[in-house]
Amino acid sequence: MSADLVLAVDCSTTSAKAIVWDTAGGRAGEGRASLELSVPAPGHGEQQPRAWWTATAAAIREALATVDAARIAAIAVTHQRETFACLDAHGDAIRPAMLWLDSRASAEVEQYGTERVHRLTGKPVNPTPGWYKLLWIARHEPWVLEATRHVVDVHAYLVHRLTGLWATSTASADPLGLIDLSTGDWSDELLGAVGLERSVLPALHAPGDQIGALKPAAAGQLGLPVGLPVIAGAGDGQCAGLGAGIAEPGRAYLNLGTGLIAGTVNREYEPSSAYRALVGAVPGTFDYELFIGAGTYMVTWFADTILGPSEERARPTEGFEKYWEARAAEVPLGSDGLVVVPYWNGALTPYWDHHAGGVMVGFAGVHGRAHIYRAILEGIAFELRLCVEEAERHQAEPVAEFVAMGGGSHSPFWCQLIADIVRRPVVLAGQDEATALGAGILAAAGVGLHADIPTAAAAMTTMGARFEPDEVAARRYDDHYAAYRAVYPALRPVFPLLKGAAA
Amino acid sequence: MSADLVLAVDCSTTSAKAIVWDTAGGRAGEGRASLELSVPAPGHGEQQPRAWWTATAAAIREALATVDAARIAAIAVTHQRETFACLDAHGDAIRPAMLWLDSRASAEVEQYGTERVHRLTGKPVNPTPGWYKLLWIARHEPWVLEATRHVVDVHAYLVHRLTGLWATSTASADPLGLIDLSTGDWSDELLGAVGLERSVLPALHAPGDQIGALKPAAAGQLGLPVGLPVIAGAGDGQCAGLGAGIAEPGRAYLNLGTGLIAGTVNREYEPSSAYRALVGAVPGTFDYELFIGAGTYMVTWFADTILGPSEERARPTEGFEKYWEARAAEVPLGSDGLVVVPYWNGALTPYWDHHAGGVMVGFAGVHGRAHIYRAILEGIAFELRLCVEEAERHQAEPVAEFVAMGGGSHSPFWCQLIADIVRRPVVLAGQDEATALGAGILAAAGVGLHADIPTAAAAMTTMGARFEPDEVAARRYDDHYAAYRAVYPALRPVFPLLKGAAA
Repeated sequence: MSADLVLAVDCSTTSAKAIVWDTAGGRAGEGRASLELSVPAPGHGEQQPRAWWTATAAAIREALATVDAARIAAIAVTHQRETFACLDAHGDAIRPAMLWLDSRASAEVEQYGTERVHRLTGKPVNPTPGWYKLLWIARHEPWVLEATRHVVDVHAYLVHRLTGLWATSTASADPLGLIDLSTGDWSDELLGAVGLERSVLPALHAPGDQIGALKPAAAGQLGLPVGLPVIAGAGDGQCAGLGAGIAEPGRAYLNLGTGLIAGTVNREYEPSSAYRALVGAVPGTFDYELFIGAGTYMVTWFADTILGPSEERARPTEGFEKYWEARAAEVPLGSDGLVVVPYWNGALTPYWDHHAGGVMVGFAGVHGRAHIYRAILEGIAFELRLCVEEAERHQAEPVAEFVAMGGGSHSPFWCQLIADIVRRPVVLAGQDEATALGAGILAAAGVGLHADIPTAAAAMTTMGARFEPDEVAARRYDDHYAAYRAVYPALRPVFPLLKGAAA
Repeated sequence: MSADLVLAVDCSTTSAKAIVWDTAGGRAGEGRASLELSVPAPGHGEQQPRAWWTATAAAIREALATVDAARIAAIAVTHQRETFACLDAHGDAIRPAMLWLDSRASAEVEQYGTERVHRLTGKPVNPTPGWYKLLWIARHEPWVLEATRHVVDVHAYLVHRLTGLWATSTASADPLGLIDLSTGDWSDELLGAVGLERSVLPALHAPGDQIGALKPAAAGQLGLPVGLPVIAGAGDGQCAGLGAGIAEPGRAYLNLGTGLIAGTVNREYEPSSAYRALVGAVPGTFDYELFIGAGTYMVTWFADTILGPSEERARPTEGFEKYWEARAAEVPLGSDGLVVVPYWNGALTPYWDHHAGGVMVGFAGVHGRAHIYRAILEGIAFELRLCVEEAERHQAEPVAEFVAMGGGSHSPFWCQLIADIVRRPVVLAGQDEATALGAGILAAAGVGLHADIPTAAAAMTTMGARFEPDEVAARRYDDHYAAYRAVYPALRPVFPLLKGAAA
């Protein structure tokens, strides 16, 4: 039997998953191992890089339990982004890795986050990119940088364990915020600000390129053939788009997770605060991403705060979404003038306002809990429309339809409501592991099981249910959307007063 | 035994109460009878005037069951305001009375509610005054006005039943919005707009004046002496202030009811949108009133919407206020930046914006239900501070302290919080029937049991617990108040969009 399968690793914040895919996108094997998150102080978030490897190895061994390893043609990695580690000459961590969610570098963001940096990197000023945290280390822990011989993203760390090489995918390294998007190479200007030599950074490869081959020690540990091609992967956001079947402009993926992320494929690079621009999973493209801090987070908030902690609820905790959706469906479109602006976790694209907070406005006696639930679902959809229209106004490719995934996509009610409000079809991704499938697509194309990445994406993905916008509902929502759009700009000067008073 | 007691009638929207008071403000007898409210269409509110009399008579007979009627020295009436009836020559109603809460005349408010009308009457443009409803009748039911021989407020109707005279108190008639506050007489200009002759309106008497004497038929029906002095009373708002012991400038009453009303005594008349000016219960004074549409209404809303309908609650329904106050007390002052603007029933003084709706702003992950409860109590106190400061900026007499009454005043936590936020002491009224006590004070002064109204008010009222502002808390609240103040002006242009979209 020839090698006709690929192995994809998704090393995320909370776990490493390994999935074996066939060339039609079917799942042949699967393994998973948890990762711990350490929070040594409020706003800090760390992990030990060796845990990435341990968990990845465990997940791979579990995935191979039901698969003949000789059938594996290639391996590719996708992963949590912006996270990085400082290693010594032996590849050992000098301090724990700092995660994407670590916000300790707020002073550095304030000081170094300029429009110039945004234009260079495509990343609106925000604490997520690793660059600001490297600046924090340079200021607070200079001895760490002095001892550092390798700065690695998660992909680079795992590639070194697999191949012995110091190399990574450009689409994996880019979220660190050290790459000049107009050249696709490390920016000497940004490296210089931290005081880093080019030699400490991994070699860059385009996604889908073969980086190297599996070295004997790793092959033995994982139960995989020595010399197995290791294909350059990409960050989880870019891979999610690919795994949703999106390899060219025209459609956007829509991840309805705890936070909401949407992304489009673009051929030109033009920075804007309306999106975060990243090196795309398809070489030569850019992934423009839209972020809403609170997605299904708001559904959980409704349960915990409006319905109350489960011990205070008479109604069963399980399946509350279905019950409240049925009641929300009885509420008139537009929730009788109640509007929720879902900035519980701040405002991201296009406003990037960390002072902003959640808003519920327009309350009258008529509004009950079902109104609040409906207004939450509507508010997130209004915010998505705002983000998409702003992105399109700023050079992003127009979005003809959304391919939805994540927890929220299991709600047909919400998907229809999004289609109506955003005025575009919403189609469900056929696969609920789109991120790992994206890495599988890169592996399959990289090793030649498909002609190229777009062909692999088309062959390995399927679509589920389709929700078309209802023209009558869409027209009625336009006025509500106009009201929604006005709320944040009106309150913008008020938020710093609220934050200041509470400080 | 000499006649040493007075009989006060409070003919409110939902019941008639009769209380027999002694000259020290002690209660000697009490009776009550319910009143029905008819809502023939949304926004309409009507009653049959004869029900006012039937209920009043029943309440008086019950109050006299334990009192020797020969000890009653006088009777005075207080009542729901703005409500009026159109009667024929026999004193029978031609159509049901239209109540203060009837909002059908919105087109007339729009058309006739001018700054000129506000200056004449002291009443900011709003659907409450009877004048707009008389204009509505003139347009929609002209045959009613043609047959009308007497237009009466509730006080005038009951005085006619008691004495046979067509007469009322200026402080009772004034809320109709037909009196020129600078002269204290009916305004020919306003009467002319409706097409009313002066002859259809009752004679005006100052509060505390003897209007007439009880006629035999009424005396027999009520079990009271023929010829009993009938003293001119006042509307329920003005009487509540008097019953809280406030007969001169310097203190304000604060009725923490479903809606919140505060009022001060003023010696000069100057119209402003910061208050509604009324003829005061003490002759020669003006009652400046502040209105917040939602007071304890918000506590009920919290229970019904945040805690959920009682059948959905695991926790007992009774006494939830105590439980949530205890939890709100553990929340930091300022509710961690969550602000509630309590415009669930629109914005009254000083903004008079019927488009406005309730707002909750500044939500973050930290905020739970106890935060919402505290933010509600704080929001109502912020709004009170806003209303008082605006009133003081517009010629209202400064308020040195508040005398609190109504359901909300039973919460020491809330009273302290109000004192801290408004930066003035809050003292509880010693009597929980302040409105009826106000009428008793007018009766006692009118019949000479006390030298004058202020002396009667001092002798017949007592004060309960006192809450002094805590200087440290007060200073910390100042920043939160500054944030609160900014919310409505920011959202003012957004509310009509919300209302328009939902229409």
